[in-house]
Amino acid sequence: MQADLALRLEVEALYARYVALIDEGPLAALPTLFTDDALLKITSRENVDRGWRLALMLAESRAAIEDRVHAIENLSLTIPRRVRHIVTGLLLEQGNTTITAGANFAVFETLEGQQTVCFATGRYRDVLRRQADGSLLFQEKIAICDSALIRNSLVYPL
Amino acid sequence: MQADLALRLEVEALYARYVALIDEGPLAALPTLFTDDALLKITSRENVDRGWRLALMLAESRAAIEDRVHAIENLSLTIPRRVRHIVTGLLLEQGNTTITAGANFAVFETLEGQQTVCFATGRYRDVLRRQADGSLLFQEKIAICDSALIRNSLVYPL
Amino acid sequence: MQADLALRLEVEALYARYVALIDEGPLAALPTLFTDDALLKITSRENVDRGWRLALMLAESRAAIEDRVHAIENLSLTIPRRVRHIVTGLLLEQGNTTITAGANFAVFETLEGQQTVCFATGRYRDVLRRQADGSLLFQEKIAICDSALIRNSLVYPL
Repeated sequence: MQADLALRLEVEALYARYVALIDEGPLAALPTLFTDDALLKITSRENVDRGWRLALMLAESRAAIEDRVHAIENLSLTIPRRVRHIVTGLLLEQGNTTITAGANFAVFETLEGQQTVCFATGRYRDVLRRQADGSLLFQEKIAICDSALIRNSLVYPL
Repeated sequence: MQADLALRLEVEALYARYVALIDEGPLAALPTLFTDDALLKITSRENVDRGWRLALMLAESRAAIEDRVHAIENLSLTIPRRVRHIVTGLLLEQGNTTITAGANFAVFETLEGQQTVCFATGRYRDVLRRQADGSLLFQEKIAICDSALIRNSLVYPL
Repeated sequence: MQADLALRLEVEALYARYVALIDEGPLAALPTLFTDDALLKITSRENVDRGWRLALMLAESRAAIEDRVHAIENLSLTIPRRVRHIVTGLLLEQGNTTITAGANFAVFETLEGQQTVCFATGRYRDVLRRQADGSLLFQEKIAICDSALIRNSLVYPL
């Protein structure tokens, strides 16, 4: 059980860092939580249920995630915005070389000068892999939105 | 403290499974988280404060919960929907034969083709009981909604 | 790691109690979670980013928090309301004599006879200090709202 607790604590810390880097910054550090060959994908439940390979956001390596982050930081948004992630209900499954993680998310968005709204809810279906240096990173981070309708545009990763 | 940690981890896993079975399915497995004589009740704060025994949903045994789940799965909804549970702030109190658990919930709903909305928030006042086989199940699951007004209809358990 | 786990469990319990005292009551017990010289502050991201010392709520000692709580309990609100806190993503940093804690919050509000709405989201930037009797209390509780626009008025602490 000691090992289970340690792993759970470690995974919760990884999610808390992921969320803090997006919501509080620095966003530029976000790619350090992903493996070199990581997949970051945002899609909708409808796409998954119908077997459609469509994605609202797709980056197929850490380099692609770095590009995406760089693009976000240099984006001129008409209206500045902040996002806020709430993540609960973590379920872990230990495999031979990877850990499968599922969790619910609710993301809120606040456009400057406006009230906060619920932006998206859904489920993470992630894969974590331990690195040679002992750290635990995201190999796959797949956010499946309950709605295909996203208020405003999707700027930040869910 | 080791025992406290183990219990907390176990209860959090029970809540995570409860949430995943409703939000991700299979809903048919939900009754397996309840004791034979379990109570599943959804009510509002107003009902509780006024001492009214009214319920928005009531099942007074595992068999009744199975019936309810069966009904949901065979329901022809005009508009398909998905729910998403966020549960935090778990507080446990160990009794002689049961464990009392309190936690806050926020439930979101997404109707097909529409944006996600906040469906209900409230408090769980649950009782858990250890079974002869060592597993921990819900003996009482009482969800108390902050609002008596439920958007659309209440289909899935909170 | 055992010490890390114990601390995390203790901090999570402190947050769960804080939330339960506001959402479920008794609110009068809330000040017991703060040190004598505690700071309770609610501000907006905009204020923080611009270096403005403005606050939506400010209490600079436990006595001031007690006054605030007393005022809330004796307030004649036109429309009674309930609040519901969701707190996740806790990150802890152990210092020499204090612990710095960060976490995301989403607070929902339900006015009597109305539907539940998202009231505010944001980040706690808190400082905890261990007391002579071994208990862990808030020395600083700073809630930074993502939006400067608060629906209705801010009655309860975030």
